[in-house]
Amino acid sequence: MENPFTDEYFMKKALQEAEAAFEKGEIPVGAVIVIDNKVIARTHNLTEMLNDVTAHAEMQAITSAANFIGGKYLKGCTLYVTLEPCQMCAGALYWSQISKVVFGASDEQRGYQNMGTKLHPKTEVVRGVLAQEASDLMLRFFASRRK
Amino acid sequence: MENPFTDEYFMKKALQEAEAAFEKGEIPVGAVIVIDNKVIARTHNLTEMLNDVTAHAEMQAITSAANFIGGKYLKGCTLYVTLEPCQMCAGALYWSQISKVVFGASDEQRGYQNMGTKLHPKTEVVRGVLAQEASDLMLRFFASRRK
Repeated sequence: MENPFTDEYFMKKALQEAEAAFEKGEIPVGAVIVIDNKVIARTHNLTEMLNDVTAHAEMQAITSAANFIGGKYLKGCTLYVTLEPCQMCAGALYWSQISKVVFGASDEQRGYQNMGTKLHPKTEVVRGVLAQEASDLMLRFFASRRK
Repeated sequence: MENPFTDEYFMKKALQEAEAAFEKGEIPVGAVIVIDNKVIARTHNLTEMLNDVTAHAEMQAITSAANFIGGKYLKGCTLYVTLEPCQMCAGALYWSQISKVVFGASDEQRGYQNMGTKLHPKTEVVRGVLAQEASDLMLRFFASRRK
């Protein structure tokens, strides 16, 4: 039997979170953190609602997962996030020593890769999972805001 | 009459916060955010107590100041922090568009400058204010932990 717990499986859950952000008028980015195929954090961007630039999906997910685990290091955990993390979120992931980061769409302008931010050397990175879906959602959001 | 509200004046308040962190067994970093010579946020590192790598002094200060202002952008604000910000905190400061960042001791290894993180182009930076005091506190902390 095929393993149902693929990167796509969990990224779909992150996309559901991104859609929840969209419905609230937030830039639609969603994240989940998984350990042993179990989702331990589900979050979406809330920077507008909370009036707080630090309320990115990833930041909330890191805090939430650490609460669940009862420790601040996210070893053995995987973050799924619909958009490439920014400097801030990559910096937080660095401190968390998370085992794996999977992201959807790339962010050429504000993404951590082009900004030169370092993840922890132990962190494995997978790019482009359901990137088109994540990107379409972002485009739809910004198109709706221009109306 | 001389202006009492110098960078040293506010950095002393950040150092008091760093001492409060020290007393709790936290890596002693403190921060304040000031607008129009008024302190609107006072925070210190709480990563151990909160089991949360995102609980750096600066991150808490940004959230707290934005709450006070009722908006997420910290234009007109100055952050005073005893240690050079890391990638995560510099990334958050970038998003906040804060007007000025003043830090004490440099962090050659994990500081945003050597890590290559970008602050917002509008942010003025002042380095080395009461650096010796901040550095002494850090050294005293790590010496006490080795005992």
